[in-house]
Amino acid sequence: VIIVMKVNASQEHLSRVLTEVEQTGCTSHTRQGKFRTVVGIIGEATEIDQNHLTSLDGVEEVVRIMKPFKFAAREFQAEDTVVNVGSGRVPVVKIGGRHLACIAGPCVVESEPMLYAIASHVRANGASILGGSFRPQVRLQDWEARAVESLKWLRNCGDELGMPICSDVSDTRQVEYIERYVDLLQVSPDNMQNFALLREIGKTRKPVLLSRGPGATVQELLMSADYVLLGGNRDIILCDGGIKTFEDSVRYSMDITSLPVITAWSHLPIIVNPCYSAGKGDWVPGLALAGVAAGAHGLIVEVHPCAEESVYDGPQAVTPHVFARLMCQVRDLAPILNKRLA
Amino acid sequence: VIIVMKVNASQEHLSRVLTEVEQTGCTSHTRQGKFRTVVGIIGEATEIDQNHLTSLDGVEEVVRIMKPFKFAAREFQAEDTVVNVGSGRVPVVKIGGRHLACIAGPCVVESEPMLYAIASHVRANGASILGGSFRPQVRLQDWEARAVESLKWLRNCGDELGMPICSDVSDTRQVEYIERYVDLLQVSPDNMQNFALLREIGKTRKPVLLSRGPGATVQELLMSADYVLLGGNRDIILCDGGIKTFEDSVRYSMDITSLPVITAWSHLPIIVNPCYSAGKGDWVPGLALAGVAAGAHGLIVEVHPCAEESVYDGPQAVTPHVFARLMCQVRDLAPILNKRLA
Amino acid sequence: VIIVMKVNASQEHLSRVLTEVEQTGCTSHTRQGKFRTVVGIIGEATEIDQNHLTSLDGVEEVVRIMKPFKFAAREFQAEDTVVNVGSGRVPVVKIGGRHLACIAGPCVVESEPMLYAIASHVRANGASILGGSFRPQVRLQDWEARAVESLKWLRNCGDELGMPICSDVSDTRQVEYIERYVDLLQVSPDNMQNFALLREIGKTRKPVLLSRGPGATVQELLMSADYVLLGGNRDIILCDGGIKTFEDSVRYSMDITSLPVITAWSHLPIIVNPCYSAGKGDWVPGLALAGVAAGAHGLIVEVHPCAEESVYDGPQAVTPHVFARLMCQVRDLAPILNKRLA
Amino acid sequence: VIIVMKVNASQEHLSRVLTEVEQTGCTSHTRQGKFRTVVGIIGEATEIDQNHLTSLDGVEEVVRIMKPFKFAAREFQAEDTVVNVGSGRVPVVKIGGRHLACIAGPCVVESEPMLYAIASHVRANGASILGGSFRPQVRLQDWEARAVESLKWLRNCGDELGMPICSDVSDTRQVEYIERYVDLLQVSPDNMQNFALLREIGKTRKPVLLSRGPGATVQELLMSADYVLLGGNRDIILCDGGIKTFEDSVRYSMDITSLPVITAWSHLPIIVNPCYSAGKGDWVPGLALAGVAAGAHGLIVEVHPCAEESVYDGPQAVTPHVFARLMCQVRDLAPILNKRLA
Repeated sequence: VIIVMKVNASQEHLSRVLTEVEQTGCTSHTRQGKFRTVVGIIGEATEIDQNHLTSLDGVEEVVRIMKPFKFAAREFQAEDTVVNVGSGRVPVVKIGGRHLACIAGPCVVESEPMLYAIASHVRANGASILGGSFRPQVRLQDWEARAVESLKWLRNCGDELGMPICSDVSDTRQVEYIERYVDLLQVSPDNMQNFALLREIGKTRKPVLLSRGPGATVQELLMSADYVLLGGNRDIILCDGGIKTFEDSVRYSMDITSLPVITAWSHLPIIVNPCYSAGKGDWVPGLALAGVAAGAHGLIVEVHPCAEESVYDGPQAVTPHVFARLMCQVRDLAPILNKRLA
Repeated sequence: VIIVMKVNASQEHLSRVLTEVEQTGCTSHTRQGKFRTVVGIIGEATEIDQNHLTSLDGVEEVVRIMKPFKFAAREFQAEDTVVNVGSGRVPVVKIGGRHLACIAGPCVVESEPMLYAIASHVRANGASILGGSFRPQVRLQDWEARAVESLKWLRNCGDELGMPICSDVSDTRQVEYIERYVDLLQVSPDNMQNFALLREIGKTRKPVLLSRGPGATVQELLMSADYVLLGGNRDIILCDGGIKTFEDSVRYSMDITSLPVITAWSHLPIIVNPCYSAGKGDWVPGLALAGVAAGAHGLIVEVHPCAEESVYDGPQAVTPHVFARLMCQVRDLAPILNKRLA
Repeated sequence: VIIVMKVNASQEHLSRVLTEVEQTGCTSHTRQGKFRTVVGIIGEATEIDQNHLTSLDGVEEVVRIMKPFKFAAREFQAEDTVVNVGSGRVPVVKIGGRHLACIAGPCVVESEPMLYAIASHVRANGASILGGSFRPQVRLQDWEARAVESLKWLRNCGDELGMPICSDVSDTRQVEYIERYVDLLQVSPDNMQNFALLREIGKTRKPVLLSRGPGATVQELLMSADYVLLGGNRDIILCDGGIKTFEDSVRYSMDITSLPVITAWSHLPIIVNPCYSAGKGDWVPGLALAGVAAGAHGLIVEVHPCAEESVYDGPQAVTPHVFARLMCQVRDLAPILNKRLA
Repeated sequence: VIIVMKVNASQEHLSRVLTEVEQTGCTSHTRQGKFRTVVGIIGEATEIDQNHLTSLDGVEEVVRIMKPFKFAAREFQAEDTVVNVGSGRVPVVKIGGRHLACIAGPCVVESEPMLYAIASHVRANGASILGGSFRPQVRLQDWEARAVESLKWLRNCGDELGMPICSDVSDTRQVEYIERYVDLLQVSPDNMQNFALLREIGKTRKPVLLSRGPGATVQELLMSADYVLLGGNRDIILCDGGIKTFEDSVRYSMDITSLPVITAWSHLPIIVNPCYSAGKGDWVPGLALAGVAAGAHGLIVEVHPCAEESVYDGPQAVTPHVFARLMCQVRDLAPILNKRLA
């Protein structure tokens, strides 16, 4: 941490700052510049209250050199985390390091036959985890009963086809229940900073798919991961579905530039959600390939029901045919990047 | 809702679209343009699944004319909502319409004497509700016990000084408990889209201060308000603490342009949180005045402890002296806007 | 400037960095942290090539403590710049420090009688400079001839009513010509980083109204001001018309939070352009008052032609009636802020 | 164009709107909804003044169905534009459609031997056009003389190695001069909306590399392209170097999501500039591959001088070794996308 004093800061201001720093047990070095005085602090950065220091008289700015996250950082763990998804009746799927995987499924689980049809198709074309987005439609008043039914269908379907399953959890009171059914707990973008939920999930021993909120920075995503890691759950897969920008031609701009950054800053695997970002199926394949090319460890893709009779399929899903072609391209792309598709 | 067909859409594509629209019970009018066909739909817009229509073959775009929120809209209620905060032992404070009010307090409630000192000062200088931000510091492991203690101090202090109190709620399991203590339930920016929490709060009968997330649009804020209104709780005060932009000279850019928009689109009162936005006390007074000048119905301000011995006071708080001067200016400004400070 | 070395940087990496720093004539202090080494540099920051240092092996980050602008900074000139607009046949209008002023006029100068009608109205209601936005409509093929005609009408009208005039300049080849006519040269948002144009304008001796581009940061705006100041022209008025954000309810979000920042960082006056930002006349008055309340030194407002027969008036203009009421409020607001409307 | 009337609009308001529409020669259809009246307009959308209509009493909103650009649109030209760069002494390089190409060179042309060294390296490793960013450093006072010298070195080097050359033009007065030297005229991001410059360039017959400003939308980029096309110059290559967002871990967020959008909306080729976006060489290869995977027709890459003695090389350049490896990956990637690297 570096403290930049104001141009007109007095000696008293400086003394007050130095006293405060000493009380934290850190040591400081003061340098007198031509215009300003700068104080560098050595010690455990987490002991420093940056806000408090900034509020002292005579302080212009407090610059943090260390990142504000800790357990998710490469400095904390140098080697890549590889998360094992699935156990028991379903085979284990690895995500992270050199292991690529694709999570796929319908947008909303409407019926058991429809789920089987899509799941069989995506399984045959290279998806290894059954999932997708299962979030309630706002107007679905009877969603909770439907959610329980859907979970059972998913579990049965996953067991039969040999695919681990992934589903949403959004209320602290449901964590214990849902954890019994699924292999991968998904935290939706809306709940990325629902810290009460993150603390509950930190206590479970199921892997977590932590989605970035479209209004969150990379640092905030990694700070949310820290919350889960602090609870003892180390199996976190990050998921980037784009950020809000001034560009209005798409729903959310996929933050491709952050993929190499996250890979450099953190040991956690990261996958991309091109459907959520694009908001339109036509643009999904290009974004999916781009995500993998930029270093993502996997994809999550929503696939349209095979017959066009669904009520809830969204414009962001891809057709079964497009999915099949995309997965061929991903399979060809992987070795160029020294990776392997599960 | 208006459906724009693709340039090369076939007659079959159009027929499929028209059949779908009919099934919703809405009526449609088709117009053949030089390049494209456009279908206008008349009826209850909420019955239309915009996503589903966009996914049909031959559809270029589905344009929604009605806003995606309903109960929070001016169309639903023409006159301004005026929220009454406080009851029983504390006087009622009105927010909304021509009623301006200021919520103020320390950043973190550290001790009972410190709370009294600040509360007395802000009360004497024009604040009518005791609050501020009481969110846990990340490293405060024993926060829950502290929170309960703080709530009791707040309640006692508010009762003695005759100020309704306001505090955070962030977990569905805590709503019932906290509701008993406070006069105004605050939903923090992090939880604006924690829909499970919003549903719980919709069931309470205490007024709600719903903070906009720094990554949320105005429409999303009003959709979150709809969730609470749907539950039957009509006493919502919106709170804008700024949005994330590419501008990096401040923490969050106060979204002043949205204040006249929100006032035009919704009947709900809106207040501003200049401390949260600025991130630096020096810039708070200008923003506070700007918020009121643009049409806000109130302010929420964090005030530094009077003596400089606090550990947790943030750089975004203002000194007691600055607060007093700001409130004088607000009091002078109100009549120019045909409003009255509580 | 502070150089943060990578965790695994070698002694050779450090030596290379120190040698490079020495060659610039600056002195350096090296501090060995628990994880990293940090090098602080003392000397003329402008001599340091931040990019070059970042590119050296072993360097994690180069943190600049000084701002990247110089002549526009408060450190360079402590007292507020007060710009005098107008000379000769028109009275001088002061902008900056405690002096507020309003620039107003039609969106497009369509005819001499229409110009006179609007100019007389705004003059009578508190505007002291005749201007507004005179940018060509894209489809106006014969704009150049029209521009010359408009300039003459503006000059005559300003002279007759005793108002300095303000108009756009956008091509390096036109600066000399336009400078002869107008009292205040306006650089439009599109041209904020047209450095060839800024260099030409730096050579003139007419005051400049430098508009912020909706995609530019405060630092970039002040760096553009530095370009003009470097050329010797010290009479710069900054103008903020909002920035692009993810919020889509308005055209550009007025960056109100930056007003106190600019006032703190720079000695130059700043005015706001609420019409450009709002994109809709209904929302202009609230934003105009907010801008002044936050510390702006003036306003630029587009006013509709008095009769509704104009072809080019935009939705962002206000009616003559709304303008008159707004200026009454501004006149009442000024003394609360210890300012005075020209 | 669709006009949405206000809920309380009167019959007079509607009549005024219909009269205005008739005067443009367009025809209109009026539909009476439950709450609002909506007017659809059929005819040449370019004849409609959207701003003027929005300003009429009783109008809530004017929704444009057609895009605001014309000549750059797929509707105007269905087949991909393939731009031929180079002629005379250098071989022609195709960009667009199935043709991929890489533009590479040093950040700043410092000396003739250094230029030859880099150019030979990039030529041998798959770059076909010699370029990069040659923009003046702010402090380089004698830039103009240097620019002329650099242009001659570039021309000689390109001729000798058989590479077309690309360089910046930023002042209307320089277009004629620079056009004589280079094969591809580059408009920098700063000048994307310098319309005077775009008009001059529209008159030339050399291909143009039009860079997107980091604060510009896709629609604005295509409107700028329209300016050049209007002048008669049809050989435009778009270039995306990222946009400004709230994410601060990188310089500009590469707007990958817009690549499939631009390819769908426009017939013009688009390349990406990963160095400009990333601001750090470490992150360039992943972004370069992602850009190509998402549909870009090429890359522009800055390469470090081979020996580390340069003064001006930026942190965003890649080393010769990294460049060579990247180009191998691009060559392997192209056939997966059914494209071919020049």
